[in-house]
Amino acid sequence: MTSLMFDSSLALSEDAQNLLFREARTANSFTNQHVSTDQIEAIYELVKFGPTAMNNQPLRLLLVQSDEGRERLAPHMSEGNRAKTAIAPLVAVLAADTDFHDRLPEHFPHFPEARDMFVGKDDFRAGQAEFNAALQIGYFIVGVRAAGLAAGPMGGFDKEGIDGEFFAGTALKSQLVVNIGHPGEDAWIDRLPRLAVRDAVTVV
Amino acid sequence: MTSLMFDSSLALSEDAQNLLFREARTANSFTNQHVSTDQIEAIYELVKFGPTAMNNQPLRLLLVQSDEGRERLAPHMSEGNRAKTAIAPLVAVLAADTDFHDRLPEHFPHFPEARDMFVGKDDFRAGQAEFNAALQIGYFIVGVRAAGLAAGPMGGFDKEGIDGEFFAGTALKSQLVVNIGHPGEDAWIDRLPRLAVRDAVTVV
Repeated sequence: MTSLMFDSSLALSEDAQNLLFREARTANSFTNQHVSTDQIEAIYELVKFGPTAMNNQPLRLLLVQSDEGRERLAPHMSEGNRAKTAIAPLVAVLAADTDFHDRLPEHFPHFPEARDMFVGKDDFRAGQAEFNAALQIGYFIVGVRAAGLAAGPMGGFDKEGIDGEFFAGTALKSQLVVNIGHPGEDAWIDRLPRLAVRDAVTVV
Repeated sequence: MTSLMFDSSLALSEDAQNLLFREARTANSFTNQHVSTDQIEAIYELVKFGPTAMNNQPLRLLLVQSDEGRERLAPHMSEGNRAKTAIAPLVAVLAADTDFHDRLPEHFPHFPEARDMFVGKDDFRAGQAEFNAALQIGYFIVGVRAAGLAAGPMGGFDKEGIDGEFFAGTALKSQLVVNIGHPGEDAWIDRLPRLAVRDAVTVV
């Protein structure tokens, strides 16, 4: 089955295609095998190279590992996600730094005016932070799989609640919560249908 | 140098790490080697498996290949991007379908109420479309590199202009324009600094 699905016209090896996309799945249950913060740091050190607009890199990761951290997180998760988050080996709260522009002089040094483009433009800056953080979250999910782990992304949570609990006094805004671990029993449902290329791609 | 950078704690092979992240770069110039729409379709067939919220898959791709298509696109690109877009082997306009909910009965069939959650909630729906399309754009950029090609993502364009020109009468909203091809001479500047793990990752 795998070999039928493999596309040899791509430069990426069959193993890597399967690891990252074709066989990788969103996990809803995990084994109790530990996931270390070192593993997540190794993922970050890989996916940090993914491109963002003006190299703005708004993504920040809060790794919830301790019992105390989980107790602070749980009330802000939607009811359907609370149990999963309590037992996942590691939970990452992925946030966008809406004050990313303060670091542009360091991250985009050849264009010294970069920071000034965003001063006083809160909505524009928030939009740029959210869009580019979402690109980086896409890279991060690929990176979790690159580490041989499964990701369980969840959008069902109270953003204001999490931001107040963990990010008070900062410009960080939570975007997605991701359970991370090795897939457990009945970790996923059957693969859901994907949009056909004829419906997704148009040529002019 | 490459072997020093390689992180053997990850499951993904060194070659794949380099192809997708460590050696891949945003290209600002391209050779005149042709990029076919078949190649982009092969990329789509790989990255379509990346996860989205409720499998909503809002990303749509408009491939601009013909001279006529390029002439329609050029006036809406910012001045600094216009020349690059004119000579890139292929240009993809990546858009979010803000009416993605109409396909949820097909894409998320085990939860028949899914579509109704989004009816009449235009802002919520647009936000979901943009966030999940951005995740998919992250997967797509990885996929371009998986095909052995270089991507040149550009945020500098007139969104309303492109939407009016190509997406009038639809719910599609342009998010990013990406030049695609084989890197040409002086295709990139030196790698820009990335945020250190200690500044990007916090543990609780």
